[in-house]
Amino acid sequence: MAQQAVTPQSVDFSKWYNEIVYKADLADQSPVRGCLIIKPYGYELWEAIRDGLDRRFKATGHRNAYFPLFIPESFLKKEAEHVEGFSPELAVVTVAGGEELAEPLVVRPTSETIIMAAFREWIQSYRDLPLLINQWANVVRWELRTRPFLRTTEFLWQEGHTAHATFEDAEAETMQMLNVYADLCINDAAVPVIRGKKSDREKFAGAMHTYTVEAMMGDKKALQSGTSHNLGQNFAKAFDIKYLDEANVLQHVWTTSWGMSTRMVGCVVMAHGDDKGLRLPPKIAPYQVVIVPIYKSDEEKSAVLGTVERISGQLAEAGIRFHVDRREGQSPGFKYNDWEMRGVPVRMEIGPKDVEKNSAALARRDVPGKEGKQFVPQDGIVQAVKGLLNAVQANMLQQATAFRDANIHDVKNYDELKQVIEAGGWARGWWAGSGADEGKIKEETAATIRCFPFDQPGGNGPCLYTGEKAERVALFARAY
Amino acid sequence: MAQQAVTPQSVDFSKWYNEIVYKADLADQSPVRGCLIIKPYGYELWEAIRDGLDRRFKATGHRNAYFPLFIPESFLKKEAEHVEGFSPELAVVTVAGGEELAEPLVVRPTSETIIMAAFREWIQSYRDLPLLINQWANVVRWELRTRPFLRTTEFLWQEGHTAHATFEDAEAETMQMLNVYADLCINDAAVPVIRGKKSDREKFAGAMHTYTVEAMMGDKKALQSGTSHNLGQNFAKAFDIKYLDEANVLQHVWTTSWGMSTRMVGCVVMAHGDDKGLRLPPKIAPYQVVIVPIYKSDEEKSAVLGTVERISGQLAEAGIRFHVDRREGQSPGFKYNDWEMRGVPVRMEIGPKDVEKNSAALARRDVPGKEGKQFVPQDGIVQAVKGLLNAVQANMLQQATAFRDANIHDVKNYDELKQVIEAGGWARGWWAGSGADEGKIKEETAATIRCFPFDQPGGNGPCLYTGEKAERVALFARAY
Repeated sequence: MAQQAVTPQSVDFSKWYNEIVYKADLADQSPVRGCLIIKPYGYELWEAIRDGLDRRFKATGHRNAYFPLFIPESFLKKEAEHVEGFSPELAVVTVAGGEELAEPLVVRPTSETIIMAAFREWIQSYRDLPLLINQWANVVRWELRTRPFLRTTEFLWQEGHTAHATFEDAEAETMQMLNVYADLCINDAAVPVIRGKKSDREKFAGAMHTYTVEAMMGDKKALQSGTSHNLGQNFAKAFDIKYLDEANVLQHVWTTSWGMSTRMVGCVVMAHGDDKGLRLPPKIAPYQVVIVPIYKSDEEKSAVLGTVERISGQLAEAGIRFHVDRREGQSPGFKYNDWEMRGVPVRMEIGPKDVEKNSAALARRDVPGKEGKQFVPQDGIVQAVKGLLNAVQANMLQQATAFRDANIHDVKNYDELKQVIEAGGWARGWWAGSGADEGKIKEETAATIRCFPFDQPGGNGPCLYTGEKAERVALFARAY
Repeated sequence: MAQQAVTPQSVDFSKWYNEIVYKADLADQSPVRGCLIIKPYGYELWEAIRDGLDRRFKATGHRNAYFPLFIPESFLKKEAEHVEGFSPELAVVTVAGGEELAEPLVVRPTSETIIMAAFREWIQSYRDLPLLINQWANVVRWELRTRPFLRTTEFLWQEGHTAHATFEDAEAETMQMLNVYADLCINDAAVPVIRGKKSDREKFAGAMHTYTVEAMMGDKKALQSGTSHNLGQNFAKAFDIKYLDEANVLQHVWTTSWGMSTRMVGCVVMAHGDDKGLRLPPKIAPYQVVIVPIYKSDEEKSAVLGTVERISGQLAEAGIRFHVDRREGQSPGFKYNDWEMRGVPVRMEIGPKDVEKNSAALARRDVPGKEGKQFVPQDGIVQAVKGLLNAVQANMLQQATAFRDANIHDVKNYDELKQVIEAGGWARGWWAGSGADEGKIKEETAATIRCFPFDQPGGNGPCLYTGEKAERVALFARAY
């Protein structure tokens, strides 16, 4: 396994990203167009994100279920905007069991239509509401341009689907799940997302309102990391989902949907990585600690591995995820580089001197060089590791937050917006323009409205584009 | 929600099964031919099985990964027996992104071919072996006749795929994973499976040896619950997967694959259910305890719910999965029946008298009527519940084992075999027949060799069919 240099971020961020994904062993290319093989290290990162979400979904009263992969073509056509949004991207099964199908089956690009058909059967009265369902699944969207994790033909995700008695209940649910996403991003992934509302032009096909969590990547581009949709009664009407309210009146329900996907793996890579490779936040790192034993003679080896064994036992007992790099024939230096590439938050080095002195060296991935390295006594090493993991987690969030805040600029007019975007930042300014105006800005600058942030200055000001009185600020950026 | 009677098992087991699946809220029918909607209660049962397996896979050194849903048609054709076994059942994507595909994509019926193509890239030397991968995924097989959970067009499963340096290593892995399946079935699902080897006629398409865990259902039919395949070098040769051994010689690897699926949900239903509904083993039950509060006046309600609240807190703290049935307008009797239908192992009743006497009633699902009901003091109730859950788990395994053992009969000749099979049992006898002989027996009795059990009497005897000297006994049964 040769250790070739990675293209620096400053030279070509996009190239850096692609190289890191493969060199850090997160994924591999597959023989199927636009589909990725998620390798164990990448999948374990996804498992940590998935488990963090699943725990939060269950804590807020949602239950998992599973619906068919295939959707009859006619179902998809029931909601007009929805089918228009998805039809160019569909993969279609036309032959099965050796015969041509009477009605082609679409491989789900998302499951609103098939789930709403079930909700219609399951919901009769207000007692059946709210209905709070989540599904973990693979979905397929035939994308023209794909990038590992960020945009792949097939991807893994969760899709929440809920039904409520009132608009207010649906809106509260939409907001609750957006906050769940923000909580996961900020507190687990150390990615300081901005919560906000999508413009009508950028909202989900079929939604009334779409809310988003937007993250800034290392190249200052935006990544939409999770979305939560208030679908109003659009799907309820298309699928005729009604309930008998307490006054015995038939009403259409109000529905929501919300999703987060393996795209989050790409988000973590691009928000935290540096020219040495990944940097993983301890809370979701597959290995929080890597132990590198250092020895030359057999005698040293036996003493060092004995100590490693003892410390491993303590880490395991404390529930710390760790890996001992026992590879023979690789130098410690090679191993250090290798685990820096894979972004393990804390490296523990144990050599003959450490055995002698009852010590160990701990090196942080987030603080390079000598500054990030300390020698600690083996007694109480679990507490030292725990403290360090907390410090790394906090520091990574702090670094990402400082980076983001330094790169969001208030703009008063379109010229300023263009300058900010051209320099690679996010532009925030008063907005009262139309969807067509957004389209023109996208054409000219490649930037879109990422969201109207919930965190608004208040009051009003002149629209940066039209000069008209605007009630809210929008956040513009180039995005993945 | 009306409570209609279920068709008794003794009248029509198959009808009983279908009714239970829907009435116990495990699943719902879907608009897609042969595909099931797995409802939350059924999915939670699957989650418990899945988590039990995943924990065991990780403990034995396997790592999860994810490979594409779609397999290029040409890949499937590389292993001759494999494609012959699966081609009648394939669902094929021919159109994607609005265009006809140059090469059709098969929706995976199993992933040997696409995973072996990756293994070819990942394996260079003996240092890369063993390679121990598992995938949690959905697969599609276009079955002519489908039954909920037991045989559906799409199902959820895990498929393990491993590569090894020697036949012995592959064989040891195949056996290890069969034992993992047996352990899950016996110790979690309380299903006393029989481990054994499949006949050549019944083995997996492309395998050298297939091992199986076979369970007896309530109607005495057999259910193949998990299989583990030693694939020899068949796939290694078809996909040219070679490694450099320690002597620097290129060798083909030896591979295995093994799978268990949502079929296990059906297994649990049919192994334990009775005419009142499901009976779930506590270790995998979504709710181990259901609490039914009983009251008439508002005063009683407040006192009872206060006690329920306090006990709930204790159960939660002890990690016991429970549900409080707070439904208004349903009688306790209705609720008892409802939770018996769903198979909750222990029911806790708390009424005004219990509040007064500081007691609670506990009723076991596995022991009907008064015999299974006891009154316990509220002090120490967590210990009482834990003890009861252990007792239910042990008793269910004991009951299923006794039932199975009472229905396996040794047979000396074909007439005896026919009698046993006709009466609905399993027939065990010496076997030295051919695949063609097995075929004839299947035609005449609908029974197949489920396996050659590992647990053999030793010695030899005359083949029950040919009279020739046989070295091993086979187990015959009708099967799902």
